[in-house]
Amino acid sequence: MNNPLILITNDDGIYSKGIYSLQKTLSEVGDTIVVAPDGEKSGVGHGITISDPIRVNDFGNKDGFSGYAVSGTPADCIKIAFNALLERKPDIVISGINRGANIGLSVLYSGTVSAAAESVIQGVPAIAISLDDWLSPDYSYSSKVAKKIVEIVLSKGILPNIVLNVNVPKTPNGKAKGFRITRQGTSNFVEEFDKRTDPRGNYYYWMNGEFSPKENNPNIDDVAIRSGYVSVTPLHCDLTSYSSISHLEKWKELENDIE
Amino acid sequence: MNNPLILITNDDGIYSKGIYSLQKTLSEVGDTIVVAPDGEKSGVGHGITISDPIRVNDFGNKDGFSGYAVSGTPADCIKIAFNALLERKPDIVISGINRGANIGLSVLYSGTVSAAAESVIQGVPAIAISLDDWLSPDYSYSSKVAKKIVEIVLSKGILPNIVLNVNVPKTPNGKAKGFRITRQGTSNFVEEFDKRTDPRGNYYYWMNGEFSPKENNPNIDDVAIRSGYVSVTPLHCDLTSYSSISHLEKWKELENDIE
Repeated sequence: MNNPLILITNDDGIYSKGIYSLQKTLSEVGDTIVVAPDGEKSGVGHGITISDPIRVNDFGNKDGFSGYAVSGTPADCIKIAFNALLERKPDIVISGINRGANIGLSVLYSGTVSAAAESVIQGVPAIAISLDDWLSPDYSYSSKVAKKIVEIVLSKGILPNIVLNVNVPKTPNGKAKGFRITRQGTSNFVEEFDKRTDPRGNYYYWMNGEFSPKENNPNIDDVAIRSGYVSVTPLHCDLTSYSSISHLEKWKELENDIE
Repeated sequence: MNNPLILITNDDGIYSKGIYSLQKTLSEVGDTIVVAPDGEKSGVGHGITISDPIRVNDFGNKDGFSGYAVSGTPADCIKIAFNALLERKPDIVISGINRGANIGLSVLYSGTVSAAAESVIQGVPAIAISLDDWLSPDYSYSSKVAKKIVEIVLSKGILPNIVLNVNVPKTPNGKAKGFRITRQGTSNFVEEFDKRTDPRGNYYYWMNGEFSPKENNPNIDDVAIRSGYVSVTPLHCDLTSYSSISHLEKWKELENDIE
């Protein structure tokens, strides 16, 4: 039997420490291949590159770490890996380890989660993994978490079309209290725009944001990690608000012709 | 009583014909303000600009059409409009009219839909509107559809946190048969990568895709427009797959400690 083929990507870019640690640890589980953005692509969501050409460069081999550096987004990396770079589809895709959590509504902006979503759209199970530590991330424990979940998914499978969105807490001893299966919450970043003037006298803005917790249910993603647990949220790509359909079907105005 | 304030954006860019037609028609309903990308941003999904500065330029007044041209994404346009450019939040946001439908899984890649989603995240009702005609779009009928739906939402309100994703069909006589309340389907674009060599001998790829219909239920978005109806899909920002939670809660392996 062949080793499982594990495709690794992220949105922090191929030079980031999180993807390096992930590849090192997952090479104990199967054959790994890295296809990741050639620079930071945080916040690009499920963006894809359709108006510009896409470049692919061999990253070379750096201390056993090798892969392809792609000039596009994380979702581009999955599309081009599946359709142009790999000889066969991987058995699993894992995206991360992201520097900073991907929880609540910020999931929508996450290139890390979107790469995993792109993979399940194309029929391959996928995991997104993030560490809730922006300032001084140490990826050793979260890499073990990734390994454990990859091993479970490879042995048991997951439901079709589901992304597992895994968030690892920052804790004093570096370890979590355990796992919690969670829901995506409604907490979000609240943005401010910092207006500045450039050396030529033209103004510009920087977007800056601060995470604003709104939830307290223990089974919500951001509450779980704040309580020291690894949060595992099953996500899908169906945005339909089923509970709103009957409400809209009562809109009698829609029965009238447009002039 | 003040006129309603209507914020208009899109992902095809401020120069596109769809946003111009939309603004002209909606100026009959209220005070309009345009804050839109300064160039085409199709396919950027819910991307936001956090690693680069954002520029805002006054588009000037061109035949009664005026607005702000923003160097970022459609979601950036909403954030900067609400937090830096407008004196008060608008009563409604409408995003479009997009050249080409936003249906099925392609909703995830759509900057048009994401701008509307960003608005509802910030508490303002929002509509995304697209015309299923890429080659020779005529926005006159779809602008009337937009006006009708904006008037309904302004008079009745919609459920909180819901985006109305409206897709207008291309029909021989330019009119639709009526409206259908629909669900987001699973149809999607299937991509190919066209590998080319540039004048300096380096290779690059173009992503190209073709829409691949998979659905036949009349209450699915792409089936509705193919049948000549305006599709109205209520979308929300909760990606949780609730039906998967009990499945994952049976994963006993998660109860074991990580070494």
